[in-house]
Amino acid sequence: MRLKLTLAYDGTGFRGWQSQTGGGAVQDILQQAMTRLAGGKKVTVQGSGRTDAGVHALGQVAHADVPDERGARFWLPTLNAVLPPQIRLLSCAAAPETFHARYSATGKTYDYLLWTAPILPPHRAGRCWHVRGVDVSALRRAAKILAGRHDFSGFSANRGKPVADARRHLRRVGVSVDGPLVRLRFEGDGFLYKMARMLVAAMVRVSQGKASPADLRARLTHRSGAMPRDVAPADGLYLVRVRYAKLQQSG
Amino acid sequence: MRLKLTLAYDGTGFRGWQSQTGGGAVQDILQQAMTRLAGGKKVTVQGSGRTDAGVHALGQVAHADVPDERGARFWLPTLNAVLPPQIRLLSCAAAPETFHARYSATGKTYDYLLWTAPILPPHRAGRCWHVRGVDVSALRRAAKILAGRHDFSGFSANRGKPVADARRHLRRVGVSVDGPLVRLRFEGDGFLYKMARMLVAAMVRVSQGKASPADLRARLTHRSGAMPRDVAPADGLYLVRVRYAKLQQSG
Repeated sequence: MRLKLTLAYDGTGFRGWQSQTGGGAVQDILQQAMTRLAGGKKVTVQGSGRTDAGVHALGQVAHADVPDERGARFWLPTLNAVLPPQIRLLSCAAAPETFHARYSATGKTYDYLLWTAPILPPHRAGRCWHVRGVDVSALRRAAKILAGRHDFSGFSANRGKPVADARRHLRRVGVSVDGPLVRLRFEGDGFLYKMARMLVAAMVRVSQGKASPADLRARLTHRSGAMPRDVAPADGLYLVRVRYAKLQQSG
Repeated sequence: MRLKLTLAYDGTGFRGWQSQTGGGAVQDILQQAMTRLAGGKKVTVQGSGRTDAGVHALGQVAHADVPDERGARFWLPTLNAVLPPQIRLLSCAAAPETFHARYSATGKTYDYLLWTAPILPPHRAGRCWHVRGVDVSALRRAAKILAGRHDFSGFSANRGKPVADARRHLRRVGVSVDGPLVRLRFEGDGFLYKMARMLVAAMVRVSQGKASPADLRARLTHRSGAMPRDVAPADGLYLVRVRYAKLQQSG
C-alpha cells in the first residue's frame, strides 16, 4: 500500500531532509521508525524534494510503500508516538500506486522569515534571518521583478552541472509585514537547488540599497551585473506546501 | 555602577536561571560574560527570582554592579555579541544603588501556553504544554475563582519549609484563545515557588472535568479536597514582566 505523508519538522537539529551516511536526516529517522513499525520490513520514504540542514518544513510531502496489513489510520498516531517531537506527521492517507511525492508535484510554496529589529528574540533564533536596514517598499519592488516565468539559472547553486531546463514559473512573490517580522512567500511550479534562498539574498540586497532593481533585472536576464550570488541562511526558510493534481484516492 | 538588565531567554538549553554547580544556568553564563567584559573583575548578577530549567523569559530583570569605566550603553551590544542567541539582553540602564532586582520588585506577570489540537507542531515543542479535552469556559471559571487576594500555600511547592506569609494578590488571571493556542496570563504582586505552574495544573484539571470548581475553591481555602498537587511542565511557562516602583534614575 502506498501512503501519502504530510510532515512538519523543525530543521534545527537534523542533517536536512535527504538521507545521510551515518543517519540524522529527517528521511533517515522516518525510514527507521517506519521500518520498525512495519516489523522490520525495510520501508523507503521518498520526499517531494530535499530541504537542506536547518531548513524547516510546515508541509513537506513524502510517499512510502508499506505492508498492507495496517490501514492508513495506523500510521499517524503510531509514528507520532515514536518520532521526536521536532518531527510530526500531520496527515497520512492511502494514495494510488502512481502517486510520486517528487514527480507528481505540480508546485511548491516556501516562506522565508526576516527579523528586522535590532535584537533577535531568543525564541526566533534559528528560525529567521536577522537583517538590518531593510526597506520594505524596495523588497516589494524586487518581488515584482522576480515574479513570473523566467529562466532562473542565475538563482541556482547548480553551476557545476547545468539544469536542462531552468525555466520556472514563480506564480507569486509575497511580502507581508508584522512588526519587525517580514515574511516573503514564494509560490512556484518548481524551484531549482537553493533558488528560494538565492532569491531572498538578492531581494534583501536590493532592499538594503546594496544593489539596484536594475542589477536584479540584469541578473534575471543573464546580463552582466554587480550582484554576488549569495545564499540566505537556511534557518529562515520554511517549506510550506507541496501541490499535486487532485489524487484518485485508493484504499 | 549598578545596572538594571532586562533579559529574554529560551529556557530549553539551560539549567534554569539560578547559578548551578558546574554552570549552565542563565545566571552563570551572564556572570561569566560580564566578568570577562569587566576585565576579569568578578561581576555578580542578581535576578528578580529564579526560573526553573525549561522555563522561558521574555522580560526577566536582574541587577549587577560593574566597574564605572564603561557607561551603561557599552553593555547591551557587547553582551549580545558574546552571549548565545538563546539569551538576549533587551535593555540595560544605570540604576540607583538602592535598586534590587528581587527586593524592589512590586509584581510579576507570567504567561503559560497550552496547545489544545491533536498534533503539537514541531516549532511549539518545548514551548507549550500539549493538553487535550480542555473546555475554555471551564478554564475561565477557574481563573475567576483563583484571582484575588488569597493564602496560596495550597499552590506552593514549599511544603518542607513553610512560607512565613503565603498571602499573595493575584491581580488578574487572563484566558485568551488563538485557535488551538490558549494563553493563561497571571499578574500578581508575587508568586510562591512553583505557584504559577501549580495554578495552571489545577486550572487544566478543572477544564478537563477531572476536578470541579468546588474542588478548586476547597483547595484555595485549605479545606480538604480531591485535587492532587501537581505541577504543569516547565516549558509552557514564560516570565513576561517584572514590575518595580518608578526608579530614580542615576548615572
